Amino acid sequence: MASLRIREAKEGDCADILRLVRVRAAGGKLGGQSRAALRADGFGENPFYHCLVAEILPAPGELQGKSQGIGSKIITKVAEVALDKGCSQFRLAVLDWNKRAMDLYKALGAQDLTEAEGWHSFRFEGEAMREMAGR
Amino acid sequence: MASLRIREAKEGDCADILRLVRVRAAGGKLGGQSRAALRADGFGENPFYHCLVAEILPAPGELQGKSQGIGSKIITKVAEVALDKGCSQFRLAVLDWNKRAMDLYKALGAQDLTEAEGWHSFRFEGEAMREMAGR
Repeated sequence: MASLRIREAKEGDCADILRLVRVRAAGGKLGGQSRAALRADGFGENPFYHCLVAEILPAPGELQGKSQGIGSKIITKVAEVALDKGCSQFRLAVLDWNKRAMDLYKALGAQDLTEAEGWHSFRFEGEAMREMAGR
Repeated sequence: MASLRIREAKEGDCADILRLVRVRAAGGKLGGQSRAALRADGFGENPFYHCLVAEILPAPGELQGKSQGIGSKIITKVAEVALDKGCSQFRLAVLDWNKRAMDLYKALGAQDLTEAEGWHSFRFEGEAMREMAGR
């Protein structure tokens, strides 16, 4: 069986993180991230984000790409980190076509706040921000 | 006309912030916040949140409670802070019955990501977190 390790990201992981962000971006609407920005935002004095990395070492002869239950293991790790930091809850954003992720989150005990309570997420982007700030 | 000042919150504002959180909680599903937690989370070394405060001084004889356009002024200030910090966007969560807030955000240039792209917000609470973490 493959061995799986989940650990905190290091600055040297930024190239790989960016590669994965771009794989996602091809199917979604992310984009614009650069390696320098990822470094500055995640590994400066007051980081904007924290990141976990899953390292998989397939067992000899084992099929690559087989599900390793990484999703639930990463979310379990997030729960541990959150409890250690004294958080009473944490939230995830997910696209409604991503049924597999939604089913996983529900199976792990999460509630769909958009469905249950009607929460909507609003985004202000650069142009709107600059217009408001008069810049 | 009333004078309105928007400034960063100080530790001494926590009692008032908590009071306002509780006013909201009566109509919504917030709750559980204590003044000690607000202090620790917002004014420690690596704060979990930042907060702006709107101070209003009504002009003599002016009706209290008259709209001062505080909502759009606070959001404009958030845009300024975000631009100063190098953010490329910021997001707000809003309940679907809060049409007035949604209309304001749209008028200021925000996009409803839940409506436009299908983003849902999922929440893991204490019990689910502890179950996952085996605590």
